[in-house]
Amino acid sequence: MTVKVIKIGEDILGANEEKARANRKRLDTHGVLTVNIMSSPGAGKTSLILSTINQMKEKVKIAVIEGDVASSVDAEKVSEMGIPVVQINTEGGCHLDANMVESALNSLPLEDTELLLIENVGNLICPNEFALGEHRRVMISSLPEGDDKPLKYPAMFADSDAVLLNKIDLQPYLDYDVNAFKKVVTGLNPDVIILPVSCKTGEGMEAWFSWLESGVKNKKER
Amino acid sequence: MTVKVIKIGEDILGANEEKARANRKRLDTHGVLTVNIMSSPGAGKTSLILSTINQMKEKVKIAVIEGDVASSVDAEKVSEMGIPVVQINTEGGCHLDANMVESALNSLPLEDTELLLIENVGNLICPNEFALGEHRRVMISSLPEGDDKPLKYPAMFADSDAVLLNKIDLQPYLDYDVNAFKKVVTGLNPDVIILPVSCKTGEGMEAWFSWLESGVKNKKER
Repeated sequence: MTVKVIKIGEDILGANEEKARANRKRLDTHGVLTVNIMSSPGAGKTSLILSTINQMKEKVKIAVIEGDVASSVDAEKVSEMGIPVVQINTEGGCHLDANMVESALNSLPLEDTELLLIENVGNLICPNEFALGEHRRVMISSLPEGDDKPLKYPAMFADSDAVLLNKIDLQPYLDYDVNAFKKVVTGLNPDVIILPVSCKTGEGMEAWFSWLESGVKNKKER
Repeated sequence: MTVKVIKIGEDILGANEEKARANRKRLDTHGVLTVNIMSSPGAGKTSLILSTINQMKEKVKIAVIEGDVASSVDAEKVSEMGIPVVQINTEGGCHLDANMVESALNSLPLEDTELLLIENVGNLICPNEFALGEHRRVMISSLPEGDDKPLKYPAMFADSDAVLLNKIDLQPYLDYDVNAFKKVVTGLNPDVIILPVSCKTGEGMEAWFSWLESGVKNKKER
């Protein structure tokens, strides 16, 4: 039986770009390395942020913006660690945008921040289309989601500087082909760094911390 | 430290509703029970559809609409099983809508179909806002996503007739509180049916097949 394919075009908003450039300039002025963290729901964005704070907070001044459709459970966890945090509730919006981030920046101590981690809304479809003013884009893909995700959501993988392959501790219990995943991601994005990690067990996390730390260092030296 | 919360409103399109009603009327005329299957990426929509076809295709005439941002890998798997299928590529769109489904219905043998399974785009944010003409809404949530998903994406859970809690075979390897999950979901949606299943091992799937079969039977008797 043949498969019929219907393609539906959709316009993408562009006015966001200008605001994102203004945010980035502001962040540059304060020397704040800003990382936009994207993934599907439950891939481990909050766990990654909490592990990163735990590991790096003595060395690096961190602030966080939490994006969610509803609730402030993630921001509360960050706040309990003594880190400045703003929760953005998009009330149905699928992604953060530069205007939302501008509002959040007004509530953060930028003069006393070296690293800003932004947790985007859990979504593999459109967050990559909306620049926030970030310097780095990080995508988390987790093993239980399946190794076909780069085929189905290619734009998110193509637009990232680093891809964290999370929950590798579950590999013995899943049918997941890490090499197949890496091959498709590298095909979409030859310059991407792929880091297999487990936020739960800590496996592979050193490479992530080093990558972040060298980014913070480079930002300060400029 | 206190958490600052910024709320951003967003208008929701309403013109979709009329088209959805027309689709439903058309499906009613042909006696086709139509099920809209929603979840985050990788929760198991395609696995559920393939298992359902495998189990029920001798008894029930099934057709499928596959929604994806890109690719037709899922539709090809369905087609290999000899089932009529249409792939909709939304090209960046976050959800299916009633217009897309109308186009797909034009390519399916409705007069020879009893059960239409629609796989929505993998997304926990907006698919519930867009009626397609379906009779039942089914949400899949998988254990590796975490038990906090109903708190963070409440609308999707509140709008579903059934919630399948998939990948229960991974429970021994995860920190997941099934009762906490059920409590929040039931709070959002007291009438919902929650079915713990594993598409991989088959555990709990009988309850899902029975639920579908009684829906098909009721539809025919009307």
